[in-house]
Amino acid sequence: MSEVDYWRWLAVAVDEAKAGLAEGGIPIGAALIGADGQVLGSGHNRRVQDDDPSVHGETAAFRNAGRQRSYAGTTMVTTLSPCWYCSGLVRQFGIGRVIIGEARNFHGGHDWLAESGVEVVLLDDPECTRLMADFIEANPRLWYEDIGEDAQ
Amino acid sequence: MSEVDYWRWLAVAVDEAKAGLAEGGIPIGAALIGADGQVLGSGHNRRVQDDDPSVHGETAAFRNAGRQRSYAGTTMVTTLSPCWYCSGLVRQFGIGRVIIGEARNFHGGHDWLAESGVEVVLLDDPECTRLMADFIEANPRLWYEDIGEDAQ
Repeated sequence: MSEVDYWRWLAVAVDEAKAGLAEGGIPIGAALIGADGQVLGSGHNRRVQDDDPSVHGETAAFRNAGRQRSYAGTTMVTTLSPCWYCSGLVRQFGIGRVIIGEARNFHGGHDWLAESGVEVVLLDDPECTRLMADFIEANPRLWYEDIGEDAQ
Repeated sequence: MSEVDYWRWLAVAVDEAKAGLAEGGIPIGAALIGADGQVLGSGHNRRVQDDDPSVHGETAAFRNAGRQRSYAGTTMVTTLSPCWYCSGLVRQFGIGRVIIGEARNFHGGHDWLAESGVEVVLLDDPECTRLMADFIEANPRLWYEDIGEDAQ
Protein backbone atom coordinates (compact mmCIF):
# COMPACT_ATOMS: atom_id res chain seq x y z
CA MET A 1 0.00 0.00 0.00
CA SER A 2 1.20 3.51 -0.72
CA GLU A 3 0.21 7.01 0.31
CA VAL A 4 -2.01 7.08 -2.79
CA ASP A 5 -4.04 4.26 -1.21
CA TYR A 6 -4.22 6.14 2.08
CA TRP A 7 -5.75 9.17 0.41
CA ARG A 8 -8.15 6.99 -1.58
CA TRP A 9 -9.31 5.32 1.64
CA LEU A 10 -9.61 8.70 3.35
CA ALA A 11 -11.94 9.78 0.55
CA VAL A 12 -14.30 6.95 1.55
CA ALA A 13 -14.32 8.24 5.13
CA VAL A 14 -14.83 11.84 3.97
CA ASP A 15 -17.80 10.78 1.85
CA GLU A 16 -19.28 9.13 4.95
CA ALA A 17 -18.71 12.28 7.00
CA LYS A 18 -20.46 14.37 4.36
CA ALA A 19 -23.36 11.91 4.23
CA GLY A 20 -23.70 12.26 7.99
CA LEU A 21 -23.70 16.04 7.73
CA ALA A 22 -26.37 15.92 5.01
CA GLU A 23 -28.54 13.86 7.38
CA GLY A 24 -28.20 16.52 10.08
CA GLY A 25 -25.58 14.55 11.98
CA ILE A 26 -22.05 14.98 13.24
CA PRO A 27 -19.67 14.82 10.25
CA ILE A 28 -17.24 12.10 11.21
CA GLY A 29 -16.76 9.14 8.90
CA ALA A 30 -14.59 6.07 8.83
CA ALA A 31 -13.88 2.87 6.95
CA LEU A 32 -12.30 -0.45 7.85
CA ILE A 33 -9.97 -1.63 5.08
CA GLY A 34 -9.01 -5.23 4.58
CA ALA A 35 -5.48 -6.54 4.17
CA ASP A 36 -6.10 -6.59 0.42
CA GLY A 37 -6.94 -2.88 0.34
CA GLN A 38 -10.66 -3.36 -0.18
CA VAL A 39 -13.27 -1.62 1.97
CA LEU A 40 -14.72 -4.12 4.47
CA GLY A 41 -17.21 -1.60 5.83
CA SER A 42 -17.71 2.13 6.18
CA GLY A 43 -19.96 4.30 8.28
CA HIS A 44 -20.49 7.62 10.02
CA ASN A 45 -21.47 8.99 13.37
CA ARG A 46 -25.19 8.45 13.99
CA ARG A 47 -25.74 10.07 17.40
CA VAL A 48 -28.31 12.48 16.00
CA GLN A 49 -29.85 10.29 13.31
CA ASP A 50 -30.50 7.26 15.56
CA ASP A 51 -30.31 8.97 18.96
CA ASP A 52 -27.52 6.44 19.52
CA PRO A 53 -24.43 7.60 21.42
CA SER A 54 -22.61 4.34 20.73
CA VAL A 55 -22.25 4.91 17.00
CA HIS A 56 -19.12 6.89 16.28
CA GLY A 57 -17.67 6.87 12.77
CA GLU A 58 -15.21 4.13 13.65
CA THR A 59 -17.68 1.90 15.51
CA ALA A 60 -20.09 2.26 12.59
CA ALA A 61 -17.41 1.15 10.11
CA PHE A 62 -16.45 -1.72 12.41
CA ARG A 63 -20.06 -2.84 12.75
CA ASN A 64 -20.75 -2.55 9.04
CA ALA A 65 -17.74 -4.73 8.25
CA GLY A 66 -19.55 -7.57 10.03
CA ARG A 67 -17.97 -10.32 12.07
CA GLN A 68 -14.35 -10.96 11.16
CA ARG A 69 -12.37 -13.89 12.48
CA SER A 70 -9.25 -11.75 12.53
CA TYR A 71 -8.35 -8.11 12.02
CA ALA A 72 -4.75 -8.88 11.08
CA GLY A 73 -3.62 -6.55 8.32
CA THR A 74 -6.66 -4.30 8.53
CA THR A 75 -6.59 -0.50 8.55
CA MET A 76 -9.05 1.90 10.15
CA VAL A 77 -9.27 5.18 8.27
CA THR A 78 -11.12 8.02 9.96
CA THR A 79 -11.67 11.70 9.28
CA LEU A 80 -10.77 12.66 12.88
CA SER A 81 -8.34 11.44 15.53
CA PRO A 82 -10.10 8.54 17.28
CA CYS A 83 -11.45 9.18 20.78
CA TRP A 84 -10.58 6.79 23.64
CA TYR A 85 -13.64 4.68 22.85
CA CYS A 86 -12.63 4.20 19.22
CA SER A 87 -8.93 3.93 20.07
CA GLY A 88 -9.83 1.16 22.49
CA LEU A 89 -11.70 -0.58 19.69
CA VAL A 90 -8.62 -0.47 17.47
CA ARG A 91 -6.36 -1.80 20.21
CA GLN A 92 -8.69 -4.57 21.40
CA PHE A 93 -9.25 -6.04 17.98
CA GLY A 94 -5.69 -5.74 16.80
CA ILE A 95 -6.38 -3.39 13.90
CA GLY A 96 -2.83 -2.73 12.78
CA ARG A 97 -2.97 0.68 11.18
CA VAL A 98 -4.96 3.87 11.68
CA ILE A 99 -5.06 6.60 9.06
CA ILE A 100 -6.33 9.93 10.37
CA GLY A 101 -7.70 12.83 8.37
CA GLU A 102 -6.93 15.43 11.00
CA ALA A 103 -6.15 15.90 14.68
CA ARG A 104 -6.41 19.69 14.91
CA ASN A 105 -9.99 19.88 16.14
CA PHE A 106 -9.65 16.90 18.47
CA HIS A 107 -6.65 14.95 19.67
CA GLY A 108 -7.85 11.51 20.73
CA GLY A 109 -5.91 8.39 21.68
CA HIS A 110 -3.73 7.96 18.64
CA ASP A 111 -0.44 8.57 20.47
CA TRP A 112 -1.43 5.78 22.87
CA LEU A 113 -2.14 3.54 19.90
CA ALA A 114 1.24 4.32 18.37
CA GLU A 115 2.92 3.46 21.68
CA SER A 116 1.11 0.11 21.69
CA GLY A 117 2.45 -0.77 18.26
CA VAL A 118 -0.30 0.44 15.93
CA GLU A 119 0.95 2.20 12.80
CA VAL A 120 -0.52 5.71 12.88
CA VAL A 121 -0.59 7.92 9.78
CA LEU A 122 -1.78 11.49 10.23
CA LEU A 123 -2.63 13.00 6.84
CA ASP A 124 -3.53 16.47 8.17
CA ASP A 125 -6.12 17.04 5.47
CA PRO A 126 -7.43 20.63 5.20
CA GLU A 127 -10.85 19.44 3.99
CA CYS A 128 -11.38 17.24 7.07
CA THR A 129 -10.19 20.05 9.32
CA ARG A 130 -12.53 22.60 7.78
CA LEU A 131 -15.52 20.24 7.82
CA MET A 132 -15.13 19.58 11.54
CA ALA A 133 -14.19 23.16 12.50
CA ASP A 134 -17.27 24.53 10.77
CA PHE A 135 -19.48 21.94 12.46
CA ILE A 136 -18.07 22.57 15.94
CA GLU A 137 -18.44 26.33 15.54
CA ALA A 138 -22.10 25.93 14.56
CA ASN A 139 -22.96 23.09 17.00
CA PRO A 140 -20.70 23.24 20.06
CA ARG A 141 -23.20 21.56 22.40
CA LEU A 142 -23.67 18.58 20.11
CA TRP A 143 -19.96 18.22 19.58
CA TYR A 144 -19.13 18.27 23.27
CA GLU A 145 -21.93 15.80 23.95
CA ASP A 146 -20.32 13.46 21.44
CA ILE A 147 -16.98 13.46 23.24
CA GLY A 148 -18.51 13.45 26.72
CA GLU A 149 -17.41 16.93 27.74
CA ASP A 150 -19.30 19.94 29.00
CA ALA A 151 -19.82 22.60 26.35
CA GLN A 152 -17.17 25.29 26.71
CA MET B 1 -24.07 4.10 47.69
CA SER B 2 -22.88 1.07 49.59
CA GLU B 3 -21.60 -2.38 48.70
CA VAL B 4 -25.20 -3.59 48.96
CA ASP B 5 -26.01 -1.33 45.99
CA TYR B 6 -23.01 -2.66 44.08
CA TRP B 7 -24.23 -6.23 44.43
CA ARG B 8 -27.78 -5.20 43.50
CA TRP B 9 -26.48 -3.54 40.35
CA LEU B 10 -24.29 -6.55 39.54
CA ALA B 11 -27.43 -8.69 39.70
CA VAL B 12 -28.86 -6.62 36.83
CA ALA B 13 -25.74 -7.29 34.78
CA VAL B 14 -25.81 -11.00 35.65
CA ASP B 15 -29.46 -11.23 34.56
CA GLU B 16 -28.41 -9.68 31.24
CA ALA B 17 -25.56 -12.17 30.86
CA LYS B 18 -27.92 -15.06 31.49
CA ALA B 19 -30.42 -13.65 28.99
CA GLY B 20 -27.62 -13.52 26.42
CA LEU B 21 -26.66 -17.11 27.15
CA ALA B 22 -30.29 -18.23 26.81
CA GLU B 23 -30.34 -16.60 23.35
CA GLY B 24 -27.27 -18.60 22.34
CA GLY B 25 -24.95 -15.66 22.81
CA ILE B 26 -21.84 -14.79 24.80
CA PRO B 27 -22.84 -14.37 28.46
CA ILE B 28 -21.55 -10.91 29.31
CA GLY B 29 -23.96 -8.33 30.69
CA ALA B 30 -23.73 -4.78 31.93
CA ALA B 31 -25.75 -1.83 33.16
CA LEU B 32 -25.21 1.90 33.31
CA ILE B 33 -26.36 3.30 36.64
CA GLY B 34 -27.30 6.93 37.15
CA ALA B 35 -26.01 9.18 39.90
CA ASP B 36 -29.25 8.48 41.78
CA GLY B 37 -28.64 4.72 41.73
CA GLN B 38 -31.29 3.94 39.15
CA VAL B 39 -30.59 1.82 36.07
CA LEU B 40 -30.27 4.10 33.01
CA GLY B 41 -29.86 1.17 30.65
CA SER B 42 -28.73 -2.43 30.61
CA GLY B 43 -27.72 -4.85 27.90
CA HIS B 44 -25.68 -7.87 26.91
CA ASN B 45 -23.24 -8.97 24.25
CA ARG B 46 -25.05 -9.50 20.95
CA ARG B 47 -22.25 -10.69 18.63
CA VAL B 48 -24.04 -13.95 17.89
CA GLN B 49 -27.65 -12.78 18.09
CA ASP B 50 -27.22 -9.79 15.74
CA ASP B 51 -23.99 -10.81 14.01
CA ASP B 52 -22.76 -7.51 15.41
CA PRO B 53 -19.20 -7.37 16.74
CA SER B 54 -19.71 -3.83 18.07
CA VAL B 55 -22.18 -4.83 20.78
CA HIS B 56 -20.35 -5.83 23.91
CA GLY B 57 -22.22 -5.90 27.23
CA GLU B 58 -21.00 -2.43 28.15
CA THR B 59 -21.66 -0.82 24.76
CA ALA B 60 -25.16 -2.34 24.80
CA ALA B 61 -25.87 -0.84 28.23
CA PHE B 62 -24.43 2.50 27.09
CA ARG B 63 -26.58 2.49 23.95
CA ASN B 64 -29.72 1.44 25.80
CA ALA B 65 -29.27 4.31 28.25
CA GLY B 66 -29.82 6.68 25.33
CA ARG B 67 -28.21 10.06 24.84
CA GLN B 68 -27.05 11.64 28.08
CA ARG B 69 -25.83 15.20 28.32
CA SER B 70 -23.35 14.16 31.00
CA TYR B 71 -22.13 10.94 32.57
CA ALA B 72 -21.04 12.63 35.79
CA GLY B 73 -21.80 10.39 38.74
CA THR B 74 -22.66 7.36 36.62
CA THR B 75 -21.44 3.82 37.23
CA MET B 76 -20.87 1.04 34.72
CA VAL B 77 -21.43 -2.39 36.22
CA THR B 78 -20.30 -5.37 34.17
CA THR B 79 -19.98 -9.10 34.72
CA LEU B 80 -16.44 -9.18 33.31
CA SER B 81 -13.42 -6.90 33.32
CA PRO B 82 -13.98 -4.44 30.44
CA CYS B 83 -11.86 -4.95 27.31
CA TRP B 84 -9.92 -2.00 25.82
CA TYR B 85 -12.90 -1.07 23.66
CA CYS B 86 -15.25 -0.86 26.64
CA SER B 87 -12.59 0.65 28.90
CA GLY B 88 -12.11 3.35 26.27
CA LEU B 89 -15.85 3.98 26.34
CA VAL B 90 -15.77 4.49 30.10
CA ARG B 91 -12.80 6.85 29.90
CA GLN B 92 -14.06 8.90 26.96
CA PHE B 93 -17.45 9.61 28.46
CA GLY B 94 -16.25 10.26 31.99
CA ILE B 95 -18.12 7.39 33.61
CA GLY B 96 -16.77 7.72 37.13
CA ARG B 97 -17.03 4.22 38.53
CA VAL B 98 -16.77 0.69 37.18
CA ILE B 99 -17.99 -2.31 39.15
CA ILE B 100 -16.68 -5.62 37.85
CA GLY B 101 -18.10 -9.06 38.52
CA GLU B 102 -14.85 -10.88 37.83
CA ALA B 103 -11.45 -10.54 36.20
CA ARG B 104 -10.25 -14.14 36.42
CA ASN B 105 -11.29 -15.24 32.94
CA PHE B 106 -10.23 -11.98 31.30
CA HIS B 107 -8.22 -9.04 32.54
CA GLY B 108 -9.15 -6.02 30.44
CA GLY B 109 -8.29 -2.34 30.86
CA HIS B 110 -9.51 -1.73 34.38
CA ASP B 111 -6.06 -1.00 35.83
CA TRP B 112 -5.64 1.66 33.15
CA LEU B 113 -9.01 3.10 34.13
CA ALA B 114 -8.02 3.17 37.79
CA GLU B 115 -4.80 5.01 36.86
CA SER B 116 -6.84 7.59 34.96
CA GLY B 117 -8.99 8.33 38.02
CA VAL B 118 -11.94 5.98 37.55
CA GLU B 119 -13.09 4.23 40.74
CA VAL B 120 -12.78 0.50 40.10
CA VAL B 121 -14.52 -2.05 42.31
CA LEU B 122 -13.74 -5.72 41.66
CA LEU B 123 -16.36 -7.90 43.35
CA ASP B 124 -14.78 -11.24 42.35
CA ASP B 125 -18.14 -12.98 42.16
CA PRO B 126 -17.98 -16.79 41.85
CA GLU B 127 -21.21 -16.91 39.82
CA CYS B 128 -19.82 -14.55 37.16
CA THR B 129 -16.56 -16.49 37.08
CA ARG B 130 -18.28 -19.83 36.64
CA LEU B 131 -20.67 -18.52 33.98
CA MET B 132 -17.79 -17.23 31.86
CA ALA B 133 -15.44 -20.15 32.49
CA ASP B 134 -18.08 -22.66 31.43
CA PHE B 135 -18.83 -20.65 28.30
CA ILE B 136 -15.19 -20.29 27.28
CA GLU B 137 -14.54 -23.99 27.82
CA ALA B 138 -17.47 -24.90 25.56
CA ASN B 139 -16.97 -22.12 22.96
CA PRO B 140 -13.31 -21.11 22.79
CA ARG B 141 -13.47 -19.95 19.18
CA LEU B 142 -16.40 -17.63 19.79
CA TRP B 143 -14.81 -16.22 22.91
CA TYR B 144 -11.50 -15.48 21.24
CA GLU B 145 -13.33 -13.92 18.30
CA ASP B 146 -15.06 -11.59 20.75
CA ILE B 147 -11.78 -10.27 22.17
CA GLY B 148 -9.99 -10.21 18.84
CA GLU B 149 -7.54 -13.00 19.54
CA ASP B 150 -6.72 -16.20 17.75
CA ALA B 151 -8.20 -19.29 19.40
CA GLN B 152 -5.60 -20.94 21.58
